[in-house]
Amino acid sequence: MSALDGRLFDILDANGVDAIWITDLVNVRYLTGFSGSSAALLVTRDISYLLTDGRYEVQAGREVRGAEVVICKKRLDALASLIEERRISDIAFESKQVSHHEWKEMSAILEGRNLLPLQDEVRRLRLVKEKEELAAIRLGCDIAFDAFCSVREMLEPGTRESDIALALVVEMRKKGASKASFDIIVASGKESALPHARPGKKKLEEGDLVIVDFGAVYDGYHTDETCTFKIGSVPERAAEIYDIVLEAHDRAIEFVRPGVRAADVDKIARDYISQKGYGDFFGHGTGHGVGLEIHELPVLSGQSEDLLEEGMVFTIEPGIYLPEMGGVRIEDMVYVTASGAEIITRCNEYMRG
Amino acid sequence: MSALDGRLFDILDANGVDAIWITDLVNVRYLTGFSGSSAALLVTRDISYLLTDGRYEVQAGREVRGAEVVICKKRLDALASLIEERRISDIAFESKQVSHHEWKEMSAILEGRNLLPLQDEVRRLRLVKEKEELAAIRLGCDIAFDAFCSVREMLEPGTRESDIALALVVEMRKKGASKASFDIIVASGKESALPHARPGKKKLEEGDLVIVDFGAVYDGYHTDETCTFKIGSVPERAAEIYDIVLEAHDRAIEFVRPGVRAADVDKIARDYISQKGYGDFFGHGTGHGVGLEIHELPVLSGQSEDLLEEGMVFTIEPGIYLPEMGGVRIEDMVYVTASGAEIITRCNEYMRG
Repeated sequence: MSALDGRLFDILDANGVDAIWITDLVNVRYLTGFSGSSAALLVTRDISYLLTDGRYEVQAGREVRGAEVVICKKRLDALASLIEERRISDIAFESKQVSHHEWKEMSAILEGRNLLPLQDEVRRLRLVKEKEELAAIRLGCDIAFDAFCSVREMLEPGTRESDIALALVVEMRKKGASKASFDIIVASGKESALPHARPGKKKLEEGDLVIVDFGAVYDGYHTDETCTFKIGSVPERAAEIYDIVLEAHDRAIEFVRPGVRAADVDKIARDYISQKGYGDFFGHGTGHGVGLEIHELPVLSGQSEDLLEEGMVFTIEPGIYLPEMGGVRIEDMVYVTASGAEIITRCNEYMRG
Repeated sequence: MSALDGRLFDILDANGVDAIWITDLVNVRYLTGFSGSSAALLVTRDISYLLTDGRYEVQAGREVRGAEVVICKKRLDALASLIEERRISDIAFESKQVSHHEWKEMSAILEGRNLLPLQDEVRRLRLVKEKEELAAIRLGCDIAFDAFCSVREMLEPGTRESDIALALVVEMRKKGASKASFDIIVASGKESALPHARPGKKKLEEGDLVIVDFGAVYDGYHTDETCTFKIGSVPERAAEIYDIVLEAHDRAIEFVRPGVRAADVDKIARDYISQKGYGDFFGHGTGHGVGLEIHELPVLSGQSEDLLEEGMVFTIEPGIYLPEMGGVRIEDMVYVTASGAEIITRCNEYMRG
């Protein structure tokens, strides 16, 4: 019997297949612990195999749990041999992860076998965080908070955006992060109207809104939070949208609990912003899951079909972006408890005193 | 007529299609200048469209050249409308980039149209670098070199691997890099036997081999080089493999010129290492293209079918990794000239004096 996550058996059973071919590297890491950049996992009822290449032989030997390591040059050739050896006839694959090209190759190599496309079944195993996962995320949030406190005094007129971003990276790494969760955003003045701005040479100025969106990676787990700062006295409109976004953020978090539709959390934030007249300026979803990936399930948007469950971890991050004027985003990560939501990122709470 | 790269017409003609659907973000950037994290490009003979979402409206307006910007929530719905409007019946897509799942969705939405899978045709447009691209890469190499010089004195017994990696990132960013090209590798002692090691808390020790693999991103273009250092006096075996790798590196570079098979460059390095008895300990390819991506075409491995051309930029990076002992990798980026190769990374050359 495979030593991997028992829930894989449910996927085998529900889809009536003998094996699952897992090529999403994050899923491979979640299931086996292997953190290299090239791997695939073949899961069967009896045994599982982790396929990787020669560069990772030593690392795979150290990290992999619950699967036999196979070192190979062409993984589809190795897959074909294993399928022959284990007499597998029906095999499921991650259809959102396998390219059309690789699927055609698989179809040719595995001629006569049934290839069944999965959707998010394997990825969904990562939806509810275990205690150890939550602990890693909390440590990451602590690191991000400590770094934030170290650089906070830089948020003054005259500091370059790119210097703040770099200082945050350095402080997070010094405090134990393996790296930043993503390219840190520090966007001031008009640039804050770009939800995904890149920090530039612009210096902060009196009256700017400054969006700082950052996070740490700790033990493979990501954090993600955004603070918006007002530099000195900001225009009335800037103060107005700040308050609206903060209220939308609070209302959305207040609404989170097990059993609620993710789309309805998005609706709470969106309706409030729309009611205040800024619906056209909130051009992204209200949040996304965070874990081994910076963006994972659940999705908190109008189109989402996800239902919230205890143990999920995701962001709540409404925003209003006024072109040529500036923007506000306030983002926290929350953990779904038995009866509500616990905010686990720390910077916004600290700023509110 | 589309204002994009004229070579796209050759792809349209060669495949007998009315349109190309480009979803590889790096190809989108190469062709239009758009550098956001969500986009697709529909190319037709008359006009091209860049599809992105609301987060990137301002950025797309600033960056995109040669294509009309379409802001949409679901890009396949927008694609369907455009295809209807432009009366497109045959459309090619990047089959190595489109997932099986997305292909199925496209097939359903574009019912009755012909969907033709491309391989690397669009990606191959990036193989030969233009003057401006080479200039950006050279600037990145200068930044990496300057950073290397700034941290070189840290390569002494007692320094932590992770401190060297962090110092390199900081120096590269201070000198103008937008970020490191990838997670920098600093691997000493036994860890140097892992080709893709991560820097840890281990301190450098007398007698260690230390692999430092790093690079800068400048204006979207990547650099990639590896130096191996001997800390003090190293064991005879370490010195031996160092010399073998260096000779393999030099022989491979000497062999590079237009018209040569990439697989033969790999063979030159591999045969020399094998002849010296270490063939089993060189478990990766000899090199890879570098540009807007850290790994792109051409591939320099035994299986490669690429032919070298003037203007290509790629790494030459043979290595020998002895488990429980240590490893050596010496990597430079070269530019293929009319008659040979020019080394464009600067650290190894500097170390050789």
